[in-house]
Amino acid sequence: MSESGQVRTVWTESELTAIAIRAFQGLGLTQTDAADVVRVLVLADLFGLSTHGLSRVESYGERLMVEGIRAQPNIKVESPAPALRLVDGDNGVGPLVGMHALRAAMDAASQFGIGMAFARGSNHFGPISPYSLIAAQEGFASIIGSNATTTIAPWGGSDARLGNSPLGFGVPNPGGQPFLLDMAMSVVARAKIRNALKRGETIPDTWATDDKGRATTDPKAALDGFLQPIGGHKGYGLALMVDIFAGLLSNAAYLTHVKSWVDAPDEPQNLGHFFILINTKVLGSPKWLTERMMDFASILHDSPPAEQGRPVIMPGEIELNKMAQQQVTGITLDAAVVKLLQEHAAKRA
Amino acid sequence: MSESGQVRTVWTESELTAIAIRAFQGLGLTQTDAADVVRVLVLADLFGLSTHGLSRVESYGERLMVEGIRAQPNIKVESPAPALRLVDGDNGVGPLVGMHALRAAMDAASQFGIGMAFARGSNHFGPISPYSLIAAQEGFASIIGSNATTTIAPWGGSDARLGNSPLGFGVPNPGGQPFLLDMAMSVVARAKIRNALKRGETIPDTWATDDKGRATTDPKAALDGFLQPIGGHKGYGLALMVDIFAGLLSNAAYLTHVKSWVDAPDEPQNLGHFFILINTKVLGSPKWLTERMMDFASILHDSPPAEQGRPVIMPGEIELNKMAQQQVTGITLDAAVVKLLQEHAAKRA
Repeated sequence: MSESGQVRTVWTESELTAIAIRAFQGLGLTQTDAADVVRVLVLADLFGLSTHGLSRVESYGERLMVEGIRAQPNIKVESPAPALRLVDGDNGVGPLVGMHALRAAMDAASQFGIGMAFARGSNHFGPISPYSLIAAQEGFASIIGSNATTTIAPWGGSDARLGNSPLGFGVPNPGGQPFLLDMAMSVVARAKIRNALKRGETIPDTWATDDKGRATTDPKAALDGFLQPIGGHKGYGLALMVDIFAGLLSNAAYLTHVKSWVDAPDEPQNLGHFFILINTKVLGSPKWLTERMMDFASILHDSPPAEQGRPVIMPGEIELNKMAQQQVTGITLDAAVVKLLQEHAAKRA
Repeated sequence: MSESGQVRTVWTESELTAIAIRAFQGLGLTQTDAADVVRVLVLADLFGLSTHGLSRVESYGERLMVEGIRAQPNIKVESPAPALRLVDGDNGVGPLVGMHALRAAMDAASQFGIGMAFARGSNHFGPISPYSLIAAQEGFASIIGSNATTTIAPWGGSDARLGNSPLGFGVPNPGGQPFLLDMAMSVVARAKIRNALKRGETIPDTWATDDKGRATTDPKAALDGFLQPIGGHKGYGLALMVDIFAGLLSNAAYLTHVKSWVDAPDEPQNLGHFFILINTKVLGSPKWLTERMMDFASILHDSPPAEQGRPVIMPGEIELNKMAQQQVTGITLDAAVVKLLQEHAAKRA
């Protein structure tokens, strides 16, 4: 429910950053930690990913208030090998743990060319593209993933045993837009199935299964069932790979060991993430990389579009263009989110 | 055309390895280099991936004979940063370059916990799962990719500008089967569309587009058009990521710069690969990793199957079981492949 009549809903990046930092301070975080969390969430809003932006203050806030997430965690970083980092998030807010892990991996990659951080004891860490962008701006290519609450069935199975785990990639382009790919493993989000149901339409049988794990074209049966992964067994395999790297190898929870934050908001989820960072600066000059990235994008852009007026785009273009636009016009936020931020900010000591 | 009446088609692994090494020596490789190539291809046959196994002696052999591939390349490895390796394959046979890059990355990962090799100046390097298995047996988790000849259209485009690039992952399991995922980015292989055409059936509109880039259910139009990537824009993004890591960052060719080995067999393709290796031994004990990998697999196996008699499996299970079986019963090879191996072996100096 937007109440835009009463609340200002367009903000500059710096205004929004300031109020959101105060909001997370109101929820008990230190200013420094709040700034990490807000950096990720404001970037998400700049990209137009509003479901993964500051709107998360609602679910993060609820869990902070019932102490399901620790407001002032003692995040520790160990190094079991020169270019590896193990980050214990101590059940802190996800993007805070994520930023610590990102910095740890960038530090390792600066020294060794490639570096990796495994994070455990974490929570929902926002979308991946903000981390990929921060890394790309510093000259690092990245492969980043997180596990998630179990919502999808194994391929050929019939109950929820794995998460719709996000996986993201970034590649710097010193003279232009970086490559940013941020994807979950399902063919579509549940919202698309809900919309089909509202409109009384059937859905393609590749979107979801019913509650017995059988492919369905009925949106109602699909909502009682499970989202299908992209490419069937391929997306299933990718989702498992993300969970093994993010959860199993990091010593976090994985698969059904991940607690649902909806069913048990006051319990630690012990989510895990992984961050692989590669220092592109040692591979060639900024000019070399820019020329190759520009040529790469041109080759794709020059493919004649299948549908007139819908040119081929590169992953990340929509988000980066949205960011460039909102950095000029301001960021539009839902009024309810603004009010919630203001409420939490008012509680600041 | 199998001619199994005249030629022995079942061989032990060591017999097949010996004859195949002689065959690649007959094509001009040194014994050591031939052993690298054959290790990858025999593993592919053991896995049941016969299209990517020793049958490749045909295409590799043709290109070696017209000097489109260099039989005795001068492969060089540089290190631009402690944990990074740049491998110049000097237009050698793909699996030879691949094995050099794999060893270089494993060496870096042994020292630093994670290591990465970028290979350029290469050719088709076989399937990925043999490399992932070799790495897993040594305790390394892996992310490996290669670019490929352009056969698919950009998402929303209408001409072939990117390859159906393979991407693979492996995770060791010291006490059981490792996790192995080896996938290309298309929903299906072209062979499946050819089979639908033969049977007079339509195909799902997610498999391919016509030659204008429009989704089609007509297998004939699909064969004139382009394979579709898994998950639409998601698989498109993944294919681009693989090409950027394997081709663009490695200083190899990428997208349309990759030459077709069919159209120009006598020209270097300059394919690129990347190998990211992670030393799991520093993350925990073999017991710790085995317990977690076994538990992970059990959780998935225990999901009630959607179709009776078709239990949930883990990626790699089919190939690893096939290998275990063929290590006992022998490897079955097409008679034409056996004859070709024998012909090349006879040319050995």
